Amino acid sequence: MEWWQEPAARLHEGAMTVAGNRQQQLTKPPGSLGELEHLAVQFAGWQGRSEPRIERLHIRIFAGDHGVVAEGVSAFPQAVTVQMIQNFTAGGAAIAVLARHCNAGFSVINVGTATPTSDQPGLVNAQLAPGTANFCYAAAMSEALLLQALACGAEHAPTEGDLFIGGEMGIGNTSAAAALTSALLTLPAETTVGRGTGVDDDGLALKCSAVQRALALHVRGEIGALEILRRLGGLEIAALTGAYIACAQRGIPVLVDGYICTAAALLACRLNPGSRAWMLFAHESAEPGHRHLLRALDASPLLNFGMRLGEGSGAAIAVPLLQSACRLHNEMATFAEAGVSTAEAH
Amino acid sequence: MEWWQEPAARLHEGAMTVAGNRQQQLTKPPGSLGELEHLAVQFAGWQGRSEPRIERLHIRIFAGDHGVVAEGVSAFPQAVTVQMIQNFTAGGAAIAVLARHCNAGFSVINVGTATPTSDQPGLVNAQLAPGTANFCYAAAMSEALLLQALACGAEHAPTEGDLFIGGEMGIGNTSAAAALTSALLTLPAETTVGRGTGVDDDGLALKCSAVQRALALHVRGEIGALEILRRLGGLEIAALTGAYIACAQRGIPVLVDGYICTAAALLACRLNPGSRAWMLFAHESAEPGHRHLLRALDASPLLNFGMRLGEGSGAAIAVPLLQSACRLHNEMATFAEAGVSTAEAH
Repeated sequence: MEWWQEPAARLHEGAMTVAGNRQQQLTKPPGSLGELEHLAVQFAGWQGRSEPRIERLHIRIFAGDHGVVAEGVSAFPQAVTVQMIQNFTAGGAAIAVLARHCNAGFSVINVGTATPTSDQPGLVNAQLAPGTANFCYAAAMSEALLLQALACGAEHAPTEGDLFIGGEMGIGNTSAAAALTSALLTLPAETTVGRGTGVDDDGLALKCSAVQRALALHVRGEIGALEILRRLGGLEIAALTGAYIACAQRGIPVLVDGYICTAAALLACRLNPGSRAWMLFAHESAEPGHRHLLRALDASPLLNFGMRLGEGSGAAIAVPLLQSACRLHNEMATFAEAGVSTAEAH
Repeated sequence: MEWWQEPAARLHEGAMTVAGNRQQQLTKPPGSLGELEHLAVQFAGWQGRSEPRIERLHIRIFAGDHGVVAEGVSAFPQAVTVQMIQNFTAGGAAIAVLARHCNAGFSVINVGTATPTSDQPGLVNAQLAPGTANFCYAAAMSEALLLQALACGAEHAPTEGDLFIGGEMGIGNTSAAAALTSALLTLPAETTVGRGTGVDDDGLALKCSAVQRALALHVRGEIGALEILRRLGGLEIAALTGAYIACAQRGIPVLVDGYICTAAALLACRLNPGSRAWMLFAHESAEPGHRHLLRALDASPLLNFGMRLGEGSGAAIAVPLLQSACRLHNEMATFAEAGVSTAEAH
């Protein structure tokens, strides 16, 4: 048995029952806090305490480059991957701003950029390879590299905490996400390829063509999720996949961000179906392929803000909603405590 | 000219232009923060500064009782209105928990409950009347009482601040909201009456019948919004209407909560169309009539969590999203500052 096949942690059913009963006693019509009630009960099950808290938040950004950028699939040059790593550690990127205000533990793991990154506080220079191969012509990764990337994600995932958010950076990675989504869900490239960082019509055609050629080259007959990831994925996507599985095994709930992260989440669930029970989905991306992944995962995202930045940013903005759900659950008075009459039977 | 007809404050177009330009320079693909970008620019226009902040938050809960409860329209007894006022000031109600964590200014205004409330810190005992009349048989309010309730809302609305949230408490007030929605939008009661705090099928039939009879009695020929509010509204709804208009006149943006608050928001816009430009809508309620009001106001709510508690709770949980939008806008690095390459023209 491989490490990623080890079972996920079990939910604490007892804590969920106690939390569910408490929700019925709080001074509000039963069910009137909607999704916030389900979230509080869910966190009780994850944390094994009937009054859950979200205080120890860990955000990890995995970065890697993609050979497919040679096909002209991105509006931004490949150098931006490394430039943005610097922007993460300097605190100027969206996810860095949000992590600061969430009081989250925050670090960046360079799983493999095309050019090296300098030593920076908050950066782990794992750099397993100078990016992936161009999947239009070859498998993105060797088997050895894939296993290293999966393990890298697990290694840098938190070992304890109340919530994990994985983020990603990698110019070209919406092309990889599209190829993975098409291969995993048997969907044509037209339904999974979007404008990513904002390619124009010509760029969109190049991107669609690249994904179509990759699918024609790599997806024949029955191939498993691990092999799909090896042929069409990215180093940062494999690391995210490993991180999600490791969190599920360690009993740490994960808040999944947008298109690329959700592709990794689906891969994690294919490699280890028990992972699904530890996942919450933050938002529906403006990237059109994302909804196919969400549907395949039977996921109801919390937000729909038309975001498509990645980095984990869509997950980080949802954190206060989860914290509010827990605070309401823990701090609201019960009918008995407040001396408020309950509903009358007719 | 009545006070509520005085024009709303003007938006600061210059600040919006500067903020919009800044959004284009931040280290992200243009538009990739979706709704968060629009929110930051909108707050710049409201606050007249290109780097808006949401720090001075004011929450006011208006409470009043409803004569229509005699028709058996609520799952909870009328005494709950006063009991919940105590729960607000004691800090055990949902909105009180959320206000505490938002660091908001928070107070409750008893506009008119059926039984008096004792003096409590954080409670204003305005109590204009012992609730409204039962609108199945008479107008809910006299003209004098309506004007007092509108003025009470304006009086207790903030005079400065970054954001206003109005909330409401009043057993029976989803019946009033349904009657108002039907009258304002010419909709049958079946489309505007919902289960409110959770009435069973018998209660729902009683509620629908009560609203139908009220509409048959009060809505004949052309009647204006003010008269609709007088005949079918509530003291707390009139106060919210006055508060929303006053905030628009004072240049304070308002975050509108659920069904009852949105009925007041539509009334405010009918009485003073300029009010609309100062409103943001927090969520879509599970109460079925709410979506009709949102559509009439051309409103896109931020959240859809199936909430139906009222109190302003759906608005308060959305506050951190607005704060995140402003923080990202203010604190993200620009491409130039971070040395990140911009998109390439194809």
